[in-house]
Amino acid sequence: MTAARKLVTFDCRFRMHRAGCIESPTLAYETWGELNDARDNAILIFTGLSPSAHAASSAEDPTPGWWEEMIGAELPIDTDRYFVICVNSLGSCFGSTGPASVNPETGRRYRLSFPVLTLEDVAESAWLVVQHLGIDVLHTVVGCSMGGMSGLALCVRRPESVRQFISISSGTRAMPFSIAVRSLQREIIRSDPKWKKGDYDVGDPPIIGQRLARKLGMITYRSPEEWVQRFGRERSTSHERIEDQFVARFSVESYLENHARKFTGAFDPNCYLYLSHASDLFDLAEYGGSLDAGFRRLQLERVLVIGVTSDILFPLEQQQELADGMSVNCTDTQFAALDCIKGHDSFLVEMDAFRPVIWDFLA
Amino acid sequence: MTAARKLVTFDCRFRMHRAGCIESPTLAYETWGELNDARDNAILIFTGLSPSAHAASSAEDPTPGWWEEMIGAELPIDTDRYFVICVNSLGSCFGSTGPASVNPETGRRYRLSFPVLTLEDVAESAWLVVQHLGIDVLHTVVGCSMGGMSGLALCVRRPESVRQFISISSGTRAMPFSIAVRSLQREIIRSDPKWKKGDYDVGDPPIIGQRLARKLGMITYRSPEEWVQRFGRERSTSHERIEDQFVARFSVESYLENHARKFTGAFDPNCYLYLSHASDLFDLAEYGGSLDAGFRRLQLERVLVIGVTSDILFPLEQQQELADGMSVNCTDTQFAALDCIKGHDSFLVEMDAFRPVIWDFLA
Repeated sequence: MTAARKLVTFDCRFRMHRAGCIESPTLAYETWGELNDARDNAILIFTGLSPSAHAASSAEDPTPGWWEEMIGAELPIDTDRYFVICVNSLGSCFGSTGPASVNPETGRRYRLSFPVLTLEDVAESAWLVVQHLGIDVLHTVVGCSMGGMSGLALCVRRPESVRQFISISSGTRAMPFSIAVRSLQREIIRSDPKWKKGDYDVGDPPIIGQRLARKLGMITYRSPEEWVQRFGRERSTSHERIEDQFVARFSVESYLENHARKFTGAFDPNCYLYLSHASDLFDLAEYGGSLDAGFRRLQLERVLVIGVTSDILFPLEQQQELADGMSVNCTDTQFAALDCIKGHDSFLVEMDAFRPVIWDFLA
Repeated sequence: MTAARKLVTFDCRFRMHRAGCIESPTLAYETWGELNDARDNAILIFTGLSPSAHAASSAEDPTPGWWEEMIGAELPIDTDRYFVICVNSLGSCFGSTGPASVNPETGRRYRLSFPVLTLEDVAESAWLVVQHLGIDVLHTVVGCSMGGMSGLALCVRRPESVRQFISISSGTRAMPFSIAVRSLQREIIRSDPKWKKGDYDVGDPPIIGQRLARKLGMITYRSPEEWVQRFGRERSTSHERIEDQFVARFSVESYLENHARKFTGAFDPNCYLYLSHASDLFDLAEYGGSLDAGFRRLQLERVLVIGVTSDILFPLEQQQELADGMSVNCTDTQFAALDCIKGHDSFLVEMDAFRPVIWDFLA
């Protein structure tokens, strides 16, 4: 916990979108910049599945955030002009209430007694934070990956409360390839005997399952083209012994191992399962019975959809579909197809490609 | 064991490509058609990782083979004209010696005492079968997926013994994306506690790990586009209960589950690990120090390279690279880029696209 991160607990029963309630949910968030007197310069950022609310550094917390090069003075999300809010998703484990939190009604961790989580719940709980900050209308909602669908959920449910929307490497809903990948990641975690149907020992979590699931994630977050350029068939060691014949030898294997080890331990496995499942469930077509009907409910003034040619998880066709649908009710819809090689993760690492597009839209 | 499958045991120490020997290896194979008097009409088929030698039905075994619609009278691999041979790969578990076989020197299964397997060993052991059948020069070598690299290994090691080569959905070597996928599949199997470092109870194998690895395989054997058309967001059941909140609901999840259950139990997990690892190890560039040098060793008269636009595992660029390299020493190199939607598996299921290309080449 840092000084930058604020926690707010809402004294209410938060009704979940599918079923069930959360008693007195806590939301963690950070803000940058100042809310102006008109209260009309607020930008809300929805994160992907795993990041915390620490999107950027600040005086209170100088450690770099997950979108450090995007948010700040004279950066595209300009904190000299905008009041920027990032909320840790409901269901996550970086301060906001989730399956790893203690249920105030029982005194024990929720674990699998946490109700089914949807991105509608992520959106509506973030909206509680926005209202708590005294804001009725958001200047812009920005959502990356899963956060793009959370943002879309907010836009379709509260069309009068959002003026602009930026969707980054996201879509209207998950399609079968990404559903299959996430479903398999969840099954891998649940197959680790240490998961114990969600009742794992907090000091001895299912790290093997988490590590394997993270590796599968990394395979889909990047792109085959990048790895050809970056690793080719380079070996991480020249020593080959029969005894360790199935152990990592190619550089790409070591790369996955290093990334997986970093992630494991940092994220609660049950929270991961809930958020991953929520990503599969969201579907704009549930608003009115079709995508078209969903799009017609939106009342956005301006939209920017950014997609990446090498994205496997949310392929460019889905970004195009989103932009096309948005343009029906919003003539000022812009679509940027970026020719980045780093796949779905490009928005985190290919900043030189992303910055100008977001800069132009928000300037 | 069927009447069509022949087993031949070679009374020799088979020296493995990397290190070690196999005492008196057995190879399982099937044949179709008749060897002509000139002994110059033989076609050798190398399989992908998992199939047996039963590529097609015959009078002795009328059950359909894995390439039933390709091999037979008046089919592209025409058994009225050609003598067709398919060998179960060394290291596999459908009759040929592999990690699941009993080591005659110890009376116990090899398991992890089996030497490191390479596709060179698969090629050279198949060559023993070819010689056993009294054939010195093969009319054509056909290799699908992993089998394409096994076939290439034979062509580069015995350039005087192969006249024509058909490579299907394969390449000169694995690149990092497919290495990462296969490495993760192997790690998933080895992470199943029932694997027991390869010493699993034969009646209680690591089926959970095998099932998960097979699902990952299926994700890469097909294509995202096919699944969008085939499944979209269709649900396999309309009942949703909080209690089974992580269990399969989308049709694509049920599809993966069904495929994984079919495969599990049919394939020995250690054999899978060895063959998967062999697929990562093969590299044509090891012949002379570069791909160019490898290509220059070939002496083929005619080559056909077939690739599929939607293949994730061996992307079309790799097929193009293979065809370009082949054409240096073989002016009659043909390249067919098929616009099939079913990804890497297309050669097994999109027969209407594949048959005419192979027909034209062999006619």
